[in-house]
Amino acid sequence: MRTGVTAIIPYENVFLDRAIAGTFVLNGAGELAGVTQVQEWGLLETPILLTNTMSVGKVSDAVVKWITRHQPGIGEEFDVIIPVVGECDDSFLNDAVGRHIRSEHVYRAIENAAPGLVAEGSVGAGTGMITCDFKAGIGTSSRRVPAPEGGFYTLGVLVESNFGVMQNLRVDGVPIGALLAPQFAEAAKRRHSYGSIIVVVATDAPLLPQQIARVCKRAALGIGRVGSYAAHGSGELVIGFSTANRVPRSGSGGMIHRVDVLLDRGIGPLYEAVIEATEEAIVNALCAARDMTGRDGHHAPALPLDALVDLMRRYRPPLPPVE
Amino acid sequence: MRTGVTAIIPYENVFLDRAIAGTFVLNGAGELAGVTQVQEWGLLETPILLTNTMSVGKVSDAVVKWITRHQPGIGEEFDVIIPVVGECDDSFLNDAVGRHIRSEHVYRAIENAAPGLVAEGSVGAGTGMITCDFKAGIGTSSRRVPAPEGGFYTLGVLVESNFGVMQNLRVDGVPIGALLAPQFAEAAKRRHSYGSIIVVVATDAPLLPQQIARVCKRAALGIGRVGSYAAHGSGELVIGFSTANRVPRSGSGGMIHRVDVLLDRGIGPLYEAVIEATEEAIVNALCAARDMTGRDGHHAPALPLDALVDLMRRYRPPLPPVE
Amino acid sequence: MRTGVTAIIPYENVFLDRAIAGTFVLNGAGELAGVTQVQEWGLLETPILLTNTMSVGKVSDAVVKWITRHQPGIGEEFDVIIPVVGECDDSFLNDAVGRHIRSEHVYRAIENAAPGLVAEGSVGAGTGMITCDFKAGIGTSSRRVPAPEGGFYTLGVLVESNFGVMQNLRVDGVPIGALLAPQFAEAAKRRHSYGSIIVVVATDAPLLPQQIARVCKRAALGIGRVGSYAAHGSGELVIGFSTANRVPRSGSGGMIHRVDVLLDRGIGPLYEAVIEATEEAIVNALCAARDMTGRDGHHAPALPLDALVDLMRRYRPPLPPVE
Amino acid sequence: MRTGVTAIIPYENVFLDRAIAGTFVLNGAGELAGVTQVQEWGLLETPILLTNTMSVGKVSDAVVKWITRHQPGIGEEFDVIIPVVGECDDSFLNDAVGRHIRSEHVYRAIENAAPGLVAEGSVGAGTGMITCDFKAGIGTSSRRVPAPEGGFYTLGVLVESNFGVMQNLRVDGVPIGALLAPQFAEAAKRRHSYGSIIVVVATDAPLLPQQIARVCKRAALGIGRVGSYAAHGSGELVIGFSTANRVPRSGSGGMIHRVDVLLDRGIGPLYEAVIEATEEAIVNALCAARDMTGRDGHHAPALPLDALVDLMRRYRPPLPPVE
Repeated sequence: MRTGVTAIIPYENVFLDRAIAGTFVLNGAGELAGVTQVQEWGLLETPILLTNTMSVGKVSDAVVKWITRHQPGIGEEFDVIIPVVGECDDSFLNDAVGRHIRSEHVYRAIENAAPGLVAEGSVGAGTGMITCDFKAGIGTSSRRVPAPEGGFYTLGVLVESNFGVMQNLRVDGVPIGALLAPQFAEAAKRRHSYGSIIVVVATDAPLLPQQIARVCKRAALGIGRVGSYAAHGSGELVIGFSTANRVPRSGSGGMIHRVDVLLDRGIGPLYEAVIEATEEAIVNALCAARDMTGRDGHHAPALPLDALVDLMRRYRPPLPPVE
Repeated sequence: MRTGVTAIIPYENVFLDRAIAGTFVLNGAGELAGVTQVQEWGLLETPILLTNTMSVGKVSDAVVKWITRHQPGIGEEFDVIIPVVGECDDSFLNDAVGRHIRSEHVYRAIENAAPGLVAEGSVGAGTGMITCDFKAGIGTSSRRVPAPEGGFYTLGVLVESNFGVMQNLRVDGVPIGALLAPQFAEAAKRRHSYGSIIVVVATDAPLLPQQIARVCKRAALGIGRVGSYAAHGSGELVIGFSTANRVPRSGSGGMIHRVDVLLDRGIGPLYEAVIEATEEAIVNALCAARDMTGRDGHHAPALPLDALVDLMRRYRPPLPPVE
Repeated sequence: MRTGVTAIIPYENVFLDRAIAGTFVLNGAGELAGVTQVQEWGLLETPILLTNTMSVGKVSDAVVKWITRHQPGIGEEFDVIIPVVGECDDSFLNDAVGRHIRSEHVYRAIENAAPGLVAEGSVGAGTGMITCDFKAGIGTSSRRVPAPEGGFYTLGVLVESNFGVMQNLRVDGVPIGALLAPQFAEAAKRRHSYGSIIVVVATDAPLLPQQIARVCKRAALGIGRVGSYAAHGSGELVIGFSTANRVPRSGSGGMIHRVDVLLDRGIGPLYEAVIEATEEAIVNALCAARDMTGRDGHHAPALPLDALVDLMRRYRPPLPPVE
Repeated sequence: MRTGVTAIIPYENVFLDRAIAGTFVLNGAGELAGVTQVQEWGLLETPILLTNTMSVGKVSDAVVKWITRHQPGIGEEFDVIIPVVGECDDSFLNDAVGRHIRSEHVYRAIENAAPGLVAEGSVGAGTGMITCDFKAGIGTSSRRVPAPEGGFYTLGVLVESNFGVMQNLRVDGVPIGALLAPQFAEAAKRRHSYGSIIVVVATDAPLLPQQIARVCKRAALGIGRVGSYAAHGSGELVIGFSTANRVPRSGSGGMIHRVDVLLDRGIGPLYEAVIEATEEAIVNALCAARDMTGRDGHHAPALPLDALVDLMRRYRPPLPPVE
């Protein structure tokens, strides 16, 4: 297998045109390098990189190299930068201590980031990740909610999912993990309660830092619905940003910045959206991954999709339409 | 109807023999008077009182009167005190602006607090409370988990439950609210996104303040499982305490206090317990309440128990035993 | 002596037209009722009341009565309210346990709040307060800093000051307390390390909640400069608000709110201003108070102004002009 | 000049025998990699490394390499690790973008860490650092306070000091910066409000994580006394640990850990100690540094010690003894 890196780029040159951002820590037993500054300023000014735990330093260093090459003036006209790098621990499948990620992998992840469909499952930073004892990795999902000024806001979630035990896995409320456990006795026996999940939330709704932090807090409820109890060793970290109100690093615009803000009493649909999208992104990571055998013969089975569909048909009630 | 007050007393004279405590704020759109000091010191030194929003001041004042009468030396030998008072908003059913709670109700709640079965539903502070558009109020639940030194730890949860909309109500994963909504069109139409929930967690496991705060954070995942999205106006506040390691206010014991602490790597079962017990306590509040018509003919129906049992039988799969 | 209440009103009808707000807790060993909601929403929607510890409940209840009388629709069209009430402990001079504040005192404080000169020293909530073993109470100070769009921003601070020990008192860096201690052996001997300070910061600079919270954090540095070490039992709580960007409770304005925001890179002068104004407000509270003998013959001497001037002349160097 | 790295090692093998730890963020505009886990667990399990901003990734990666070499079982029997690395921005004097630190420098810093006198000024991570426009870098100071059980507690502080503007520099209350500014017009003109400070607090007092976090919060008051206003771009981060109550990673000791804890009412002297020691450590960093000319002829003058002594003699009053 090849571990890897995943890059999320809010838009062209987030360094010069910062995105309003916020975070939430459900369980801090992990690392989201750069989070302290994002919390303090409510701004994101670098790409967000995801990787495995032992590679955070290497990836952070590669981001510094990449940005200082592409953005002249850092350390002179402009302040120095602090990259944002999240991680999960893939050492069950991966030779994590070997730290096989090189700068080129980071450059490629940043440069290949593109709009459109997102590859899911065992790709990039998700390569060695496991969720509730099934193979998982990268997952994504989004929702559109009506915007009060007309049109829609989009809220998207991308997860690096690597937490939980089989017994607790639920899909839309159905206890899939407990139902499947007897067939996966070997995998379920691991019951490794460590792991982690990084959730990245992006929206075009015009939110302030405090509002994005509140949206990120609700993402934690989505993690919980899939079956996480935020185990002691499981870092469950959420970072979000809005592409609506950008904050220029400098320039002729003056010191006063005019922003449009969605009033809090209109924020409810975004809260519901982020819970649903987080839950679905994790399930998508599970559904997109395939069986994997990693280092020393360690094996993670894929979630059996036929059985999943069968169980969902049986136990997920057909819902009446909402008036 | 009669609104009321509910008192939780950790044990005899928590003022002299403080309980180690912690808190978590899922959504701060509510009041838990005294919480700032509990967070700072990691100690609980008064009873915890629950009431409705507009009565927090009255109840807090009554607690001061009660304690200064029963505990000589406050303001002299001992510091002054800051009571802990949580609230939810019952103004749909109750004449909240009328503020009908008197000091005697508070004294009675404190003095009648007793071990044993806890009355649930529309009692005390739960009298006017509603959850997911059904009548709710006070609920409780507990779990026992094996203690590493032998025997068991008990973790109990008491909720004042008053949040959510019918469409989102789930019981153990089954979307009961969406299934019942067509029969309760009138009640479901309210879709009041305000409300609140106060969760009180008690345990005899030997935990430090930081550990109790982490347990309280997991209670939020239990709230989420019932269907809360922590709506903008819904204060979702959690406070917890341990009865194991008491901290004396003063005395001959010296400045060094010896405590036994459960190591974090053994805390997982308590995390699972608090999520389950919080979820179950909310469901119990719903199941124990009866239909209520309050001020101005406002009506909250009880959760129909026959229909609930029927739906759970149909959609809650029988789980295989855990090996 | 007569203990009392002090009211701060941001402007006419802050209930309908909320002020953007933030807080900081240097030491949470105190109470600022309502702070949880202010932190969560970044909004202030009631007057801020200051009083003594044992009266917080009574004052909170009186604010509820006052607002529900003057603002029809609460509990119906409008949500219920949670008052903001800060406190310090005046039980050395005052019969705190007697709880002598009545609703009328609160109404009067709210209704008499007015622009213009603020009475300082032993007035209102400051009546029984002591700072570094000298009589203190209410103090205020303000600064004007150039606004980038022309004109000035004003930042004002009001303190209820009641912390510290004589040995640590510094005035603009000069160790006044240590120098005076030999003359005030009796008072200095108390060395009560409890106490508290509530700092209220008001500005017309257009700041967001997160920015106001950062301004409040710097107020703590001003408390430190006067000699506080934020003693275990000393609640040191800061709340701030901006009058610039008001957030309407409801109405025809729609869900999108347009705000002008001062960019963070222009916020430095406000940080310097709040530190200076906090330091000066505390010193003003000390300078305005007179000797007071309270309950049981307990005595707090005033800071001797002649000696203060003399020591400042001797040890405070004349500063060269800033270019 | 040679930029560098500074390592703080609590004691032999902090990986297996974790130190109880806590943190405080006065201003989060900086990086203390690993801080999220330290906050969550209240444990320190790696050395603390200090460096310059652009080298955090490289240093973090080198620590991973070093620990995995010296501690077999990581990623197998033991969890993976997250190093703690703090930074300040030295790009005025240093070619920061060049990222000249190599893994060997990190290994050497870790392996050469030793008890005894600490080199101060322009050494290690302090090489390119500036404070209030004078050359600074690494500084240290400590205090001993009586322990209630007899003997003494020691509290030591080490700073990487790189913040502030000359005009604000105060030494024990005397406005040294304003007094010297006319002689240092060139240096004072820079008025760079960026910069940062990392404060590391170590003590042998038996404190819990929450208590250490409270001690760290008081260190911020020490930073403020030297003249910091925690400028927008100045990361002011504090981390502390106790060597008294170690928490074993694993082993036969069982799940219950017995700890001795200093009661909070005895913690005051440690609060006073950390404020004084932080203030003195910064002044020591200034006093130990010499003039430095760095990249592109950028120059930072040393604080003139003769002038300092002269001004302190004139304006720092001789204090009467404390009874």
